[in-house]
Parts: sequence; C-alpha cells; structure tokens
Amino acid sequence: MTKEPADTAVKNNIVIPEDYEFAYPPSEMVLESGKKLGPINIRYETYGRLNKDKSNAILIVHAFSGDAHAAGYHSEDDKSPGWWDNMIGPGKAFDTSKYYIICSNVIGGCQGSTGPASINPETGKPYGLSFPVVTISDMVKAQYRLVFEHLRLPFLYAVAGGSMGGMQALEWSVAYPDFVKSALILASTARITAQGIAFDAVGRNAIVSDPRWQNGDYYGKKIPARGLSIARMVGHITYLSDESMGMKFGRRLQTRQKYGYDFTDEFEVESYLHHQGDKFVERFDANSYLYITKAMDYFDLGAKYGSLPQAFSRAKAKYLVVSFSSDWLYPPYQSKEMVFAMIKSGRDVSYIELNSPYGHDSFLLETTRQKKIIKSFLESVNV
Amino acid sequence: MTKEPADTAVKNNIVIPEDYEFAYPPSEMVLESGKKLGPINIRYETYGRLNKDKSNAILIVHAFSGDAHAAGYHSEDDKSPGWWDNMIGPGKAFDTSKYYIICSNVIGGCQGSTGPASINPETGKPYGLSFPVVTISDMVKAQYRLVFEHLRLPFLYAVAGGSMGGMQALEWSVAYPDFVKSALILASTARITAQGIAFDAVGRNAIVSDPRWQNGDYYGKKIPARGLSIARMVGHITYLSDESMGMKFGRRLQTRQKYGYDFTDEFEVESYLHHQGDKFVERFDANSYLYITKAMDYFDLGAKYGSLPQAFSRAKAKYLVVSFSSDWLYPPYQSKEMVFAMIKSGRDVSYIELNSPYGHDSFLLETTRQKKIIKSFLESVNV
Repeated sequence: MTKEPADTAVKNNIVIPEDYEFAYPPSEMVLESGKKLGPINIRYETYGRLNKDKSNAILIVHAFSGDAHAAGYHSEDDKSPGWWDNMIGPGKAFDTSKYYIICSNVIGGCQGSTGPASINPETGKPYGLSFPVVTISDMVKAQYRLVFEHLRLPFLYAVAGGSMGGMQALEWSVAYPDFVKSALILASTARITAQGIAFDAVGRNAIVSDPRWQNGDYYGKKIPARGLSIARMVGHITYLSDESMGMKFGRRLQTRQKYGYDFTDEFEVESYLHHQGDKFVERFDANSYLYITKAMDYFDLGAKYGSLPQAFSRAKAKYLVVSFSSDWLYPPYQSKEMVFAMIKSGRDVSYIELNSPYGHDSFLLETTRQKKIIKSFLESVNV
Repeated sequence: MTKEPADTAVKNNIVIPEDYEFAYPPSEMVLESGKKLGPINIRYETYGRLNKDKSNAILIVHAFSGDAHAAGYHSEDDKSPGWWDNMIGPGKAFDTSKYYIICSNVIGGCQGSTGPASINPETGKPYGLSFPVVTISDMVKAQYRLVFEHLRLPFLYAVAGGSMGGMQALEWSVAYPDFVKSALILASTARITAQGIAFDAVGRNAIVSDPRWQNGDYYGKKIPARGLSIARMVGHITYLSDESMGMKFGRRLQTRQKYGYDFTDEFEVESYLHHQGDKFVERFDANSYLYITKAMDYFDLGAKYGSLPQAFSRAKAKYLVVSFSSDWLYPPYQSKEMVFAMIKSGRDVSYIELNSPYGHDSFLLETTRQKKIIKSFLESVNV
C-alpha cells in the first residue's frame, strides 16, 4: 500500500516517523556482496508538502550516527529537535515552504530501519553478525525503493548530505542519474583516507574487544557499552578540530583548581568525551557501529566505476560541493579531487571551501553561511 | 657507590645497561604532588667516553614509549638496535667519538626504572595504582640525581629529546639552569593541546575498560592486553600523518583482491595497526601507559613558572627547536610559541621547521637532515 506523501507533512512542527517495508522473501533485495536481505524496513520522516507535479522533493541522507529524524519534534514534550533542524524548516536552508523533504534511516542502522539489531526472520532472533554487510550503494538502493516505489516520486529535485550523507548523495547521482537533478555534498569524500579507515578500525576493535560484545550476540543481555563508548570517544575527536577543541576546552580542569595527581577525568575535555561516549551508548547499537563504519571504509566511488571522472560521466546532476578548512577527517583536498573529476566529466559544479574552525562537524554547525550557499544553489536547479 | 662513567662505554657496539638506586627511606624523593617515592632505581645506558674535564656529556631523554636503550645492541644476537641508533654513534648526529651520551628510562616507566610494575617496599607486591603519580618534573629530578650524584658530572653539554623527551629537555633547562649548557627540543611542546589530552584520555579509557586491568592489580595474572593494544593503535595514528599513512597504505587490501564483506582486518592499515598494538603489549606495561600519559597531560611549562617567557627567563641554555610540518600531535605552531617566548626572554635559540610527511614520528625518521642541524648546533655550544 502506498500513501499520498503530502499527508505525512509536519503539523505544528510535530513530525511522525513512518515506515515502509519491502523486499519480502522470495523477492529480497540483492546486496552489493551478492547476499540477499529482506524484508527490509525503512524508517523515514517528511517535512513540507509535495507539490502537484511532484517536482520539489529533496532527499536528506544522514551521516554515520544520524537517523531519519532530521527536523521538527516527535512530541510536544520532546526536548531536542531533529539533527539538522537548524537547516530544515520554513525559510531555512532546506526551505519546507518550498520543498518537500524526506529523510530516512540507513539500512544497517539502528533507528528504525532494518539493521543488525532487527529480527532475522529465519531465526526469529536479532541478526547480530548474521546481518549481511551492507554498502553505501545498498543503502542508496533501499532509499530508491522508498522514494520510487513507495512515495512514487518521478525524480528527486536534490539529494543532500554531509559526511557519510555526502557519500550517499554521490552514489545516488551516479547510480540513478536520471532520478537526481542535483546533489549537495557537504564535508564529504569519494573515498576515505587510510587515516580514516584506521580510526574506524580502532572503533571496531574497541567494540569487539569488549567481552560483552559476545561476537555480536548481546541483544537482551548486557551491551558492550565500554567498547562502544571508547569507539565514540575516538570518533568524536575526529569530528572536531585541534582549534575547536582548544577554544572549547583548552587545558581547563573540570572541577579542580589544580591537579589532583590521580586518574579521574580532571581535564574538561576528558569529561566531555566521556559524556559523549556515555550518551551515545544510550542511542546507538554497537553492531550498527561495525556495519556502518565498514560501509564507509568500503565506499570508493572511483574504484567502483573505473575512475572518478568515469563515475561522474554517468551522472547528470548539478553538484554543490562544500568543504571546511579545519575538517581533517574528510579534508578539503579530497573535495577538490572530486570537483576536478566532476569538471573533467563536464558536470556543472559549484565548489566552496568554508573557512571554519569546527572541523568535520562544521556541516552541522555552520548554519548561516551554508544556508546562503544552499538556498541559492537550490534555486539554480532546473527540473 | 659511584663508578667512573667512562667504564660504561660501548664496547664493539654492545652496550650494557646499568642501574642506579637512590632515595632510600627515610630519604625518599619528594614528588611534585607532595608524595614520596623511594627507593628509586634508574636504568641507564651510556655511549662514547667522558672526557677528562667532564665537559662532553649529553643526556638523551626519551619519548613516551622509549627507554634507556637508545643505541647499540644488547648482545651479539640482538636483532634490533636502540630506538635512536640512527642518530647516536660515531660520526652520527650525536657523535660518540666526541660526546659522552647518557640515556635513562623515566620513572613511572617499565623498562628498568622504578614504575607501577616495581615492587612497593611497603607491601612486597607490585605498586600498581599505589604508585604515586609522577610528572615530567619528577622524571627530570630523578635524572638529575643520576647525572649529578652518581655520574658526578659538573654539567650537561646538552639535553636532547623528541616528543616527551623534548618536554624533559625543556624542564631540565628551566629547573637546572646552571647545569644545562644547551637543550635540543625536537617535535615537542611546552604543553599538549586539548586534542592531545583527548587522545591520551581515550587510550587510558581503553586500558581501564579492559576487565583484566583489575584496577591496576593484574601483575602475575592475565594482562589487559586488548585495552593496551587499542590504546597503542590510537596513539600510533597520532604519531603518523594523513599523508604518510596515505603513502604507506592507501586503501590497499592486505591479502584480498576485492572486498570480503566481513569484519576481518582487510585493509593493510588495519592489519598494520593491529600488529603495532600486539607488538606493544609484549614490551609495555599498561599501568605505565596511564602514568606516563598523565605526566604528559600535566606538563605545562608556562603554567608552572607563571608564563613561558618567565620560565625561559630562568634558563641559561642555548636552544635548538625543531618542528615537523606534518606533526599534528605537537604541531609546529606550538614550537613557534615556545620559540617566541625564548626570544622574548633573551635566550639564544635556533628554530627550524622541517618539511616532512612523516608526522610526529619524523624526529625518529628524518636522520639525514636532523644530523646536519644537530651537529652544527652542538658545535656552536660554549662550555
């Protein structure tokens, strides 16, 4: 059953998540690995209204630890809005008075879409490590099923995402060239660096080294919280920058006037990181950490399509690429590499490197400058 | 009992480590924290010969995971030489045909000097967490006892070190101004950044989260190898650079031609990091990891002496400061900060930033260029 997407729009800024289930056996979705996955549930939210000719739909694709809840509130008591609420809404960068915005949770995730914590229909128990490895391409394929089959959109006005969201937007534009009119690639890359893989590997090692991980079979038992927390702490450092950490924490002590000569978290930055780790454990599944970092490590658009210029030769989308000067996880030189390949392939591309101290997280924080850039880019897209 | 230091010199490149024990109760050494430590053993090695007027002694101070074995071999079967053998020896940067070189293991360490794995004389068992927190200043104080009391040197021609070794060299020059004629500060800082503290905190968390850590009381039992290995993996990333990791590993797979869609260490960089972690566990004590990173986090020369210029106003040494362009752990801007403070205090300082892709580890790898710089600096020192 499909339903008129306009019905799902925000009401008084309260948004209700929805689900689309598909790929029922024997018609499972074939993954890049050759394995099959099904049924698949996709959790998604929409904001704004689809216009009559269905030409104003923008798909927001989320970053590693993001989810379908990009904007608005889930209830009147909800304390914090969706993760990109500063960018999605009436008059905002992604203007819901003009555009119909969709955001879905990736497969392999743990926020409503099918992932390793979901029930394996073959066993009646959570998948755990029996969940197949999924790639960025598989995530996009599932999103395509949502927007094409279920929401019945003729095309996407834009696909936009930061970080791993940018990878998905890149893949969208190359895998479904006729379906994507424009792609916004923020703080992202066509392939992560050896250093990026190394940090992901450390996070995965921290998780699988936690005795509670139990080879991924910890559901309903004590979860590998220490390992997941350490993984998050490492990750979090890579999302910030030397400069922003210096500004935010410096060498300040948390509660003391002078050194305590013990091993408590006495520096503010230690305490902050620990807190980030602990908070993350409450909302994120350790196995999803393994699967999604693996998907990022595997992503290599150039290798998949022969070369980056060959990849972009397939695309028809207009591109906006934004990088941030202090982003050392997905550094600006990688965005430039992409942009050169886009130009070589004759694509229409706008590239901006924003001077910002906030590191990789800049795409979540630099609201004002990104709004200006994104608004004018979106206005320039022809459908 | 003291002994003539020239007797301890290298014979046929075979070096024999020596020990100096001091601070016997009730004359324990008073630490910066106010706590007492004693007896203290210092493991040290020497290379070259002390001249008649005892004016050619250079103290090499080691980095975080270094030890007293800086050069030469321990036996004829020994497969690898000391950690700075490429820089210490006849005709090398620290020329043993001219200088008498001393290198000692820091207190708090685990390579022969008193540390948390040593026997606590009060209990007859290893200290573990009952070992008092030591600082860079305490390490230097113990070294002073070695070179002044035991080796009976009138002064040091130079104190030289990279990374945490540089911190010790800085502290030496400020704490014992009349004893230090010159100080060589390589890839170092007068205080680490918030980001640096954050990485240390992650490493410590990985260790204390390992159930085998047992609040530090694991000696004679199974050691917290997983936690220590993860700590080392994180640390190791910070010693390299994005560029050097890209050159060394890129996105190459270890043994496969294509992705295996599983969670083995399939990228070369993963496998390398894992190997580094495993190797480290064989030679390093997890509690020493806690103590020594804490000493680095605490080190803040400016805060201790009022300000950096005030600190250097106490010093009399001639300085050489070398930073490396791709060192993001102790970045060049921190060296420059030091140098400006040295100049403000009227010190004689030479500063060079070497353009190198090897990150923080450059001070261990850039032999040829450092040799040239260090040789001519050492020749310019007046005693």
